Amino acid sequence: MITVGVIGYGYWGPNLVRNFAEVPGGRVGVVTDLHPARLSQVTARYPATRVSTDHRDVINDPSVDAVAIATPVSAHFDLAMAALRAGKHVLVEKPMTATSEQSMTLIDEAEKRGLVLMVDHTFVYTAAVRKIADLIAGGELGRVLYLDSVRINLGLFQPDYNVIWDLAPHDLSIMNHLLPKDAEAISATGESHLNGHEDIAFITAYYPDKMIAHVNVNWISPVKVRTTLIGGEKKMLVWNDLEADEKLKIYDKGVDVKSQEGVYNLLVSYRSGDMWAPQVEQVEALRLELRYFVECITRNEAPFNNGCAGLKVVRMLEAASQSLAKRGALVYV
Amino acid sequence: MITVGVIGYGYWGPNLVRNFAEVPGGRVGVVTDLHPARLSQVTARYPATRVSTDHRDVINDPSVDAVAIATPVSAHFDLAMAALRAGKHVLVEKPMTATSEQSMTLIDEAEKRGLVLMVDHTFVYTAAVRKIADLIAGGELGRVLYLDSVRINLGLFQPDYNVIWDLAPHDLSIMNHLLPKDAEAISATGESHLNGHEDIAFITAYYPDKMIAHVNVNWISPVKVRTTLIGGEKKMLVWNDLEADEKLKIYDKGVDVKSQEGVYNLLVSYRSGDMWAPQVEQVEALRLELRYFVECITRNEAPFNNGCAGLKVVRMLEAASQSLAKRGALVYV
Amino acid sequence: MITVGVIGYGYWGPNLVRNFAEVPGGRVGVVTDLHPARLSQVTARYPATRVSTDHRDVINDPSVDAVAIATPVSAHFDLAMAALRAGKHVLVEKPMTATSEQSMTLIDEAEKRGLVLMVDHTFVYTAAVRKIADLIAGGELGRVLYLDSVRINLGLFQPDYNVIWDLAPHDLSIMNHLLPKDAEAISATGESHLNGHEDIAFITAYYPDKMIAHVNVNWISPVKVRTTLIGGEKKMLVWNDLEADEKLKIYDKGVDVKSQEGVYNLLVSYRSGDMWAPQVEQVEALRLELRYFVECITRNEAPFNNGCAGLKVVRMLEAASQSLAKRGALVYV
Amino acid sequence: MITVGVIGYGYWGPNLVRNFAEVPGGRVGVVTDLHPARLSQVTARYPATRVSTDHRDVINDPSVDAVAIATPVSAHFDLAMAALRAGKHVLVEKPMTATSEQSMTLIDEAEKRGLVLMVDHTFVYTAAVRKIADLIAGGELGRVLYLDSVRINLGLFQPDYNVIWDLAPHDLSIMNHLLPKDAEAISATGESHLNGHEDIAFITAYYPDKMIAHVNVNWISPVKVRTTLIGGEKKMLVWNDLEADEKLKIYDKGVDVKSQEGVYNLLVSYRSGDMWAPQVEQVEALRLELRYFVECITRNEAPFNNGCAGLKVVRMLEAASQSLAKRGALVYV
Repeated sequence: MITVGVIGYGYWGPNLVRNFAEVPGGRVGVVTDLHPARLSQVTARYPATRVSTDHRDVINDPSVDAVAIATPVSAHFDLAMAALRAGKHVLVEKPMTATSEQSMTLIDEAEKRGLVLMVDHTFVYTAAVRKIADLIAGGELGRVLYLDSVRINLGLFQPDYNVIWDLAPHDLSIMNHLLPKDAEAISATGESHLNGHEDIAFITAYYPDKMIAHVNVNWISPVKVRTTLIGGEKKMLVWNDLEADEKLKIYDKGVDVKSQEGVYNLLVSYRSGDMWAPQVEQVEALRLELRYFVECITRNEAPFNNGCAGLKVVRMLEAASQSLAKRGALVYV
Repeated sequence: MITVGVIGYGYWGPNLVRNFAEVPGGRVGVVTDLHPARLSQVTARYPATRVSTDHRDVINDPSVDAVAIATPVSAHFDLAMAALRAGKHVLVEKPMTATSEQSMTLIDEAEKRGLVLMVDHTFVYTAAVRKIADLIAGGELGRVLYLDSVRINLGLFQPDYNVIWDLAPHDLSIMNHLLPKDAEAISATGESHLNGHEDIAFITAYYPDKMIAHVNVNWISPVKVRTTLIGGEKKMLVWNDLEADEKLKIYDKGVDVKSQEGVYNLLVSYRSGDMWAPQVEQVEALRLELRYFVECITRNEAPFNNGCAGLKVVRMLEAASQSLAKRGALVYV
Repeated sequence: MITVGVIGYGYWGPNLVRNFAEVPGGRVGVVTDLHPARLSQVTARYPATRVSTDHRDVINDPSVDAVAIATPVSAHFDLAMAALRAGKHVLVEKPMTATSEQSMTLIDEAEKRGLVLMVDHTFVYTAAVRKIADLIAGGELGRVLYLDSVRINLGLFQPDYNVIWDLAPHDLSIMNHLLPKDAEAISATGESHLNGHEDIAFITAYYPDKMIAHVNVNWISPVKVRTTLIGGEKKMLVWNDLEADEKLKIYDKGVDVKSQEGVYNLLVSYRSGDMWAPQVEQVEALRLELRYFVECITRNEAPFNNGCAGLKVVRMLEAASQSLAKRGALVYV
Repeated sequence: MITVGVIGYGYWGPNLVRNFAEVPGGRVGVVTDLHPARLSQVTARYPATRVSTDHRDVINDPSVDAVAIATPVSAHFDLAMAALRAGKHVLVEKPMTATSEQSMTLIDEAEKRGLVLMVDHTFVYTAAVRKIADLIAGGELGRVLYLDSVRINLGLFQPDYNVIWDLAPHDLSIMNHLLPKDAEAISATGESHLNGHEDIAFITAYYPDKMIAHVNVNWISPVKVRTTLIGGEKKMLVWNDLEADEKLKIYDKGVDVKSQEGVYNLLVSYRSGDMWAPQVEQVEALRLELRYFVECITRNEAPFNNGCAGLKVVRMLEAASQSLAKRGALVYV
């Protein structure tokens, strides 16, 4: 039985607690949060769980095997470092840390101590992303030409970072999980209208072999959109995460190019065939991820969304921030 | 009665001919195209209209008052110049010319000769764009913060230019028509996968007063999307041009900011109110535009979508091309 | 070459003329309509076609081989009868006649004279219906359990008949075309709010083997809906005719029943699998139908949507009218 | 503080327990269910709540003030009767009882003992229905002409009743709540394909003043639909309960009739104006309802969805069943 301590019971913490409480082999021992009001909610729902306003009651608790950190990003590094030093396995929310240096320090510390360090990239556990990963790996789409993701809504302004650091980690972690190679360079544009941090931003990531990815994130959109297009040489897909059913549609559409003397352009022809929406399971992604976290600890294995996966996202965020400051100028990752 | 000669009867030419034939005060005298097969279609539908494979049969025809040019872009300048020199009024398809220098030359020539020079920015005549223009001009949206436009589909590869020159003139002409100020600088990214011209591209335009616009164009999308978001300080709107009804939705949503000592971020609050879809007329935009072209000739007036409007779009396209070549680096317009 | 005379140039007549003009082996010789204004539109578009306000100029014209009748229903019988007696082949709009007796008289007359009598059930020529017919005939759906069709919008009130006679012929002709057996009995309900004819109505048709069909027609709906569900034992489909693409979606969903002693209800289990949207051709249905009409005349063959198909629909409409008058009481067809 | 005992912890029971646990002035004292496995779920989540497999442990518990009954319909009457006789207030799931006689007996018993008897018509507490009720009561729609409701999906076959008794109580209770008068007569059609109970059915309800309502319920639909149209003389609305936002759309569309000598039909004209989607609150309907139940008990008031509201629905279900057996023949309510 792995006993987990959860630090932070704001937006995401309740989901961590609920799922850890029901994962086989897991239990929630302590929850800490700076706000006593939130802790009384914990007590109401989970009378057997201890609560505290002091995170050290998690870190120093010898019965705690693993610590889940769901605080603002600025606190991630210190808390994760303290937990690792106390010999705890760590699950940290995305983005992993505020800088890539911090991420590297955490990776080293976990490595040195033989502890599991996992970053919560929940989306890669969704049935949709797992299905897309299978389709790409199985060659069904052919070579991927582009990925185009939109993640916009009327969103909560974050006091300490911009819309890219808030929303894009989802898209970047999905891209890193799905695409065969890593991004080489990033161009980002955007604008801040209200509180000094960008509330609308656009990221282009250049990949080897003419792959390109684009991410559109926006806190001031009147409508909520969560749509990703992936264009492959053989097939293309649309993932609309807001659809209750038919989240994933795969189109037998594409462009065939036959190069021939002189009349090149006439030989770009279109295919437009059937569409197919595979049934995807209805499992809560976070449940799967937390079960896997517990299993990794039990089996002493490194998770695939480990510290390095977290670092890769932070590096892309840093590159995007630099490009944003130079209004689109290319920054190598 | 204004007699029009139409050069080019490919994709758009038939729409010009059909509408000129029914516009009050207009008639189609001659149609030319390099392909005889297309001309026999003209004859079948309009037995009274002369046809020719030689564009000089339009330019040199003394009964022709105005020339409409619907050829590939590379031919626009020479044909328009010849028509103006022959004393004809000119309507030219978008983008007006292949370079901004050519556009300036045409503007000078038309000016000198007192002829109407109009560029076919059809979209600004749609009921949706006219309604949006009213809403912005009337202050209903408040200060515009951003415009975000997506125009993607499985599209015809153009042999002589990329997806930006093909599709973005729609968005750029709409932006220029709607927004109170001109774009200052442009960053563009994209990739070419098939025939050496970019088939997917993203343009960010920076405006004064922290206004920002983004255009997403793509020839290799499995789905067709024609959606523009406009976020204002008071209200926001979504224009989905593929909706049969309810093309335009106006949301009483927004963000209120009250700056107050120290706790700035706590005072960004959300408004989420009703949505309203105004009835928009079902009139063919091209019909309106061509009627207006005939009226401008008759009244000897300059149209608002004149050569300067065309030039402005070409300059933005040139800036986007330069930025694209430098993978996102900012280019001033 | 088959020369066609068209009687009636109101809503549908222009579509008949346009398509007959372009069908191989067909041409439009004469068009008649009571309104001279409409005829001048014909002349403007088809200078070679004669026009008249007197339908006898079609009936008595010896150069006319076939007559297409697109008048109000009340005139169908007299015009079709006159045309047949003059030795012309006949295409008549739906519903074929105002009574089943009239339909039978026309069938006899055509039979006796060896003439083609076809009723314009355009929808059965659409790519969607042809695809559905293939799926059902090929056993892909399994035994059909039900068909449920909705055809509603803010519609033109007809002065001489109700919403059932106006809209339901579409659904009834589709049902007769798709389903293996004929309806046995009909129950219909509805209400007239405005001009004495029902503007909203619901038809249930009972078939052998527990098949059931339902049609919902409405002239006073704020939204336009054109959706048909067909539930089969193996698969089910949704046909949404207002979708630009993906009009047809086939669901690998169903109910499996295993009867077993005592615990019957526990053994009704669900299947929920993939969805599949076949590519359907984009051909104008009326074009196909008119080409087929011309071919039937040329080859001296009876069309499948012949007088008997028209009669079957009229009989169902009569049964529905009788049931409607008795507020739902069952009427055998 | 009102202590509630809940009988039945299957599909709906958990929602009752969760909400009663959080309603001010309410608490859950005991939960019973025939399945011990379900009861261990209760214990896991609510350690302080007693559980039992014997419903008499609710009925006979002197600390229990009110009993909520969420069992199969066949058990409703006996349990509610026992609870009332034991002096408990009663909340019973819909449909209230299996016969109208049983409903009347319960109403009498509650009346005699001065106890609250409420039937759980949850939908009338949704923000959408409350908004529609306001619109109708405020005259915004004008006189209601029709209501047309579709409630279909791949649904759980019920062993002891058909799809009408399962799904239509939602629509009937909504209709009774919204419409100013009661239905006079009902026609129902349908078919049973699998387990002897109808799995697809259509109900038409005739009202005074030419109002008509239609309900389409179906357990074997490949897609889930929850849509209600309401057509008024002034405005019309569409309520799509599956939309996350914009559940309610109000159309300024309608038909204007001016009667004038002779040419009556020409004077039915259309209005097609704006559409408006009011913001509706995001409150859980059941929460509101249970709070109201507790308040009614506390204040000794009769709820509006009392036994009589439940009886009205059961009478309509009985009429529909009779009509269904006669395949559509009209049955007076």
